[in-house]
Amino acid sequence: NIGFSCICSEVRGRCWSVDPLLSSSYLLQDSRGRPKEIPHNEKLLSLKYESLDYDNIENQLPAEGAPCLRWVVCGLIGFLTGLVACCIDIVVEEMAGLKYKVIKENIVKSTEAGGLSISLILWAVLNCAFVMVGAIMVACFEPIAGGSGIPQIKCYLNGVKIPRVVRLKTLVVKVLGVMCSVVGGLAVGKEGPMIHSGAVIAAGVSQGRSTSLKRDFKMFEYFRRDTEKRDFVSAGAAAGVSAAFGAPVGGVLFSLEEGASFWNQMLTWRIFFASMISTFTLNFFLSIYHHKPGDLSNPGLINFGRFESGFLGALFNVLNYWLTIFRIRYVHRPFLQVIEAMLVAAVTVAVSFTMIYFSTDCQPLGPEHSEEYPLQLFCADGEYNSMAKIFFNTPERSVRSLFHSQPGTYNPLTLGLFTLTYFLLACWTYGLSVSAGVFIPSLLIGAAWGRLCGILLASITSSGSIWADPGKYALIGAAAQLGGIVRMTLSLTVIMVEATGNVTYGLPIMLVLMTAKIVGDYFQEGLYDIHIKLQSVPFLHWEAPGTSHWLTAREVMSSPVTCLNRIEKVGTIVDILSDTSTNHNGFPVVVKPAKLCGLILRSQLIVLLKHKVFVELARSRLNQRKLQLKDFRDAYPRFPPIQSIHVSQDERECMMDLTEFMNPTPYTVPLDTSLPRVFKLFRALGLRHLVVADDENRVSVCLCYDDLARYHLGKHGLEELHLAQT
Amino acid sequence: NIGFSCICSEVRGRCWSVDPLLSSSYLLQDSRGRPKEIPHNEKLLSLKYESLDYDNIENQLPAEGAPCLRWVVCGLIGFLTGLVACCIDIVVEEMAGLKYKVIKENIVKSTEAGGLSISLILWAVLNCAFVMVGAIMVACFEPIAGGSGIPQIKCYLNGVKIPRVVRLKTLVVKVLGVMCSVVGGLAVGKEGPMIHSGAVIAAGVSQGRSTSLKRDFKMFEYFRRDTEKRDFVSAGAAAGVSAAFGAPVGGVLFSLEEGASFWNQMLTWRIFFASMISTFTLNFFLSIYHHKPGDLSNPGLINFGRFESGFLGALFNVLNYWLTIFRIRYVHRPFLQVIEAMLVAAVTVAVSFTMIYFSTDCQPLGPEHSEEYPLQLFCADGEYNSMAKIFFNTPERSVRSLFHSQPGTYNPLTLGLFTLTYFLLACWTYGLSVSAGVFIPSLLIGAAWGRLCGILLASITSSGSIWADPGKYALIGAAAQLGGIVRMTLSLTVIMVEATGNVTYGLPIMLVLMTAKIVGDYFQEGLYDIHIKLQSVPFLHWEAPGTSHWLTAREVMSSPVTCLNRIEKVGTIVDILSDTSTNHNGFPVVVKPAKLCGLILRSQLIVLLKHKVFVELARSRLNQRKLQLKDFRDAYPRFPPIQSIHVSQDERECMMDLTEFMNPTPYTVPLDTSLPRVFKLFRALGLRHLVVADDENRVSVCLCYDDLARYHLGKHGLEELHLAQT
Repeated sequence: NIGFSCICSEVRGRCWSVDPLLSSSYLLQDSRGRPKEIPHNEKLLSLKYESLDYDNIENQLPAEGAPCLRWVVCGLIGFLTGLVACCIDIVVEEMAGLKYKVIKENIVKSTEAGGLSISLILWAVLNCAFVMVGAIMVACFEPIAGGSGIPQIKCYLNGVKIPRVVRLKTLVVKVLGVMCSVVGGLAVGKEGPMIHSGAVIAAGVSQGRSTSLKRDFKMFEYFRRDTEKRDFVSAGAAAGVSAAFGAPVGGVLFSLEEGASFWNQMLTWRIFFASMISTFTLNFFLSIYHHKPGDLSNPGLINFGRFESGFLGALFNVLNYWLTIFRIRYVHRPFLQVIEAMLVAAVTVAVSFTMIYFSTDCQPLGPEHSEEYPLQLFCADGEYNSMAKIFFNTPERSVRSLFHSQPGTYNPLTLGLFTLTYFLLACWTYGLSVSAGVFIPSLLIGAAWGRLCGILLASITSSGSIWADPGKYALIGAAAQLGGIVRMTLSLTVIMVEATGNVTYGLPIMLVLMTAKIVGDYFQEGLYDIHIKLQSVPFLHWEAPGTSHWLTAREVMSSPVTCLNRIEKVGTIVDILSDTSTNHNGFPVVVKPAKLCGLILRSQLIVLLKHKVFVELARSRLNQRKLQLKDFRDAYPRFPPIQSIHVSQDERECMMDLTEFMNPTPYTVPLDTSLPRVFKLFRALGLRHLVVADDENRVSVCLCYDDLARYHLGKHGLEELHLAQT
Repeated sequence: NIGFSCICSEVRGRCWSVDPLLSSSYLLQDSRGRPKEIPHNEKLLSLKYESLDYDNIENQLPAEGAPCLRWVVCGLIGFLTGLVACCIDIVVEEMAGLKYKVIKENIVKSTEAGGLSISLILWAVLNCAFVMVGAIMVACFEPIAGGSGIPQIKCYLNGVKIPRVVRLKTLVVKVLGVMCSVVGGLAVGKEGPMIHSGAVIAAGVSQGRSTSLKRDFKMFEYFRRDTEKRDFVSAGAAAGVSAAFGAPVGGVLFSLEEGASFWNQMLTWRIFFASMISTFTLNFFLSIYHHKPGDLSNPGLINFGRFESGFLGALFNVLNYWLTIFRIRYVHRPFLQVIEAMLVAAVTVAVSFTMIYFSTDCQPLGPEHSEEYPLQLFCADGEYNSMAKIFFNTPERSVRSLFHSQPGTYNPLTLGLFTLTYFLLACWTYGLSVSAGVFIPSLLIGAAWGRLCGILLASITSSGSIWADPGKYALIGAAAQLGGIVRMTLSLTVIMVEATGNVTYGLPIMLVLMTAKIVGDYFQEGLYDIHIKLQSVPFLHWEAPGTSHWLTAREVMSSPVTCLNRIEKVGTIVDILSDTSTNHNGFPVVVKPAKLCGLILRSQLIVLLKHKVFVELARSRLNQRKLQLKDFRDAYPRFPPIQSIHVSQDERECMMDLTEFMNPTPYTVPLDTSLPRVFKLFRALGLRHLVVADDENRVSVCLCYDDLARYHLGKHGLEELHLAQT
């Protein structure tokens, strides 16, 4: 069932082919007969992902409009996202508090009476239990809810339909899962999952129905189209960022950076609206819950940070890359995945405990007892174990403590050991079958080594200078580490600036992020891009690959074009749709001889077949209801497969008139158009299909999204990926 | 010379025509023979504005690249913009300080000795002198430097080439002019001009040469194209906003909101870079100059403001609209313009003085003497005149005082009178031939009536509640007033949030701005749009007019298409280019019979003619240097007019081969494409020309930018504007 063939095209004297070693590696894999393990190879492009159609369908059916409703929906999205964020926050806070209280009491008791190993076991069991619940939910019920969800949302905004990614069930598993993983003490954050949650909420609310609940609320029916749904998902993702970081502008920029092709002012404005509502809702409810809105606001000073962090980020990504390949190959059964998650939880506890146990870094308790769960352990009275302050806490609190604690709170050895162990733990954790984000662990690692650098620098230079505040270095380090791992530059700067609430840090943060990106890109791609590639998702980047200008539309097409006549036999249509070897989604409509007159989509044909809109039947049943736009909308987004539609032998002989339903003016380009030009058209207009016509306006090729995503710039110049059905 | 004809097209049973009253009004105008006064009519579209070509020219000439240089240029733009902003700030500060000191001493002396009229005259003379200098510069040397410059930059980013708008001379006049107007005490701000200045700096730096200075630095030659230049101007405008308000993100959003068509990630990132550098440079130098960075930071509280402000904004716009029409008709000689500016300056002084003189609102001096120039006048010792605190100060300081002063600093009568008079003064001032912005006056008016509302509300509700701080109301009022006047919603929210440094105000500000926009749009367009319309600039809005979907490309074209053969006679080309009645800028290239094979631009043809790239000559002179991309760049942007190129009678018989230079794959659409679809293509790809081809790929129509800008939604449905050569 793997339908790829090794095409080594000789075009204008240049040959591009895949690395022979890698080819053999997945051919080997294939011969074992485990198709599920194929996608680990990044030279493949999976055909199981469909693309979204962002182009408006224009045909002769009457259009409808609903201008004001969009604002209402965006407001709702923002409100619900804020509410969900608030729930996660409160539940995590309460449960983690309870957990740490129980363990602390036990430790205090054991420190005096002996038997600290009991405490260790208690801690490990509690954590493993939480992680197990989270892992079981993800592994058994909804695997797509694992991880941070940001790669999936990136793909969705890019125009790739990932199955099940915006379902209600995914949301539930995601939210419960992230609570379990954070409370379970894994090296994870809850910010990434918030972005995914916002996107799911947006998709659900805007469609006004849920397949999981089998309910159709008959609301917002107008929005049941790819175009509208993607717009709302952008708003939802922005609202998620906004709720996660209190950064509404950063949310808007995240959505735009990842998804927007054509800058649409009204859309951007609605996205911003959703973001604002979201962050406001969260603030409102949290300030009811506890009367101290915890924001990262520290007063101004400009410094320029340091620039080595891109390397650490790249190292993280390289390690995680190999780990992910290992996981895709060997850890693909739910049972194994749950076991691995529990193992990580146990190791995390063991490492933390060992570090705390052997640490001799004692600090005096602050006068206002600002520490959350101070562990005295073997320290003198009135002191606490400094290592426990970072390990024995939720990651958010640890980050805040690293940013804001007074100089001298941590000694360099503590920070160094912490950085090393947490780096390895976080790297191992990301990609587990639990719902988990990578933002907070990255920030934590970066903050730790940033603070470490700050302390070392302060010990070299004269003390007491304004350059000596290690909190500032922690901030810059955190930005650098996060930037090195995820490589979002524009939106990340804005998010960090908004989160610190101080624009004076903007320039240093931006410079650090840019350097981290440049250094990191030299070694390895960003973490999200790695995971997208490992899933073999056809993903269109912002620009066509640099060396592709000598490639023309004529050469890009992957398979011969399949055209339909304007009045076509039903049998022919059914056969074409059933042909699994091509699996096209759009078909140029032609009049004899091969003259282009329109474009029709698979989904439209399916609906037409389902309603049996045949010329002969229309004549016999004069009072038959005409097909409306609504009929297409109701079938969205899960159009039935062609196999489920029964067409009798008699009906196969009928004719279908496509004139009324096809798009009569599809975008076309001439045969000699260069790849960058085609690319620009696809990106700017969000196209899914592009018809290539010759001088006589005859259809030559129909390019689809996958055809463009196949080309990418590898180490040996332009490379072409193989298409696989998995 | 006015080549418009009244087209009343009967298309699909609908007729759109212009208002008969208005038609007669400009026909009357025309019969007087003063073509300069024509453009006051908003039903006209001027042909003197050309559009920018944002599409990359693809032809057979070898391309070049310069990836890293763009970052350097953006950094330079940010740095220089910040420096200019800093200069303006310091000069205004120093000179205004000197002026107010002199006048204050005089008033103090006169209050005791009598003869306050002498003070009035001194004040008036000083102000008039400054304003006169500013007005003379603008009116006599560079009229385009008048006003805030934002409408012009909006047009430029939209893709319209406004003559002389990004010249060095414009920059000098703008900067000196704005210093004069602000020091001259007019009701103007220096923020709008900063945006224009940033754009000019960007255009100048990126081109690496100056026509005003007649210097070519041989730098950045690669950027001498419309595409690149427009990108840099976006960055410059963003840097200007960033320097003016300390709002780098707001600057990016301003550029995107006004200009971006295709969301380009790298470009956005560079724009952000320029913004950051700009605000940092400004901060850096200003903090050297005086050690108190004056930022509008006041602590958090959320309120929902009030919603009547859109009306006031619309009133401002309506008044200014009539005033501008009056000015275009009657005040078009430089002499009159200078006189008017001085008159306004004198009236401003007179009104201010009268208000201060008759005010009886005395307030005790603060303990720390925080007032800048307190006037005691007839108040008791230890007190100062409260009216003088707002009138006898630079507008920026007055705004800050309204936001931050303690409750009770101003009494309601003072604020009411101030709002009324300042509203009328600001309205009269905007549109004078001086370099001046409308941001600060709008903020000031809004802050005054916002504070007034706050005081009234506080007197109704119980005192001492958190709702009683009039500073918050001043902020919301200022946002509302500014939003009502300029109608920028997204970027303005971000700018206000960044300027206040507090995201908690974000939601109320956004809601207020949205309401102001909705209410204001009901009465009248935004101020900038009014001025763009009054200049008859062909401006493409974000979306095609709502009712235009029944219009197809076939019907939109304004004039018959002019095609060139691939190998064309030089005489024919010269004749076509010299034909002033059509004045096309792009020509489809065809092979017999009318089959489209490419597109060539007027500018390219001019360069070809200038270098005499004729087939016959190439044969005779074998060693002739081949034409490079550089030759086209060197001629940019001021291609010589066709009249200046001498072509002998012999040469007219030569042939030109366009194959190598034309774009072989221009974007095309079928004849029946709807207007919204064509519109989307123009906007998303930044096109200047679009070829419309029939079923046989024969050229039927060549649409240009103006053809699309002609349609707009008026009160009577879709309206078509007339084209005029002025």
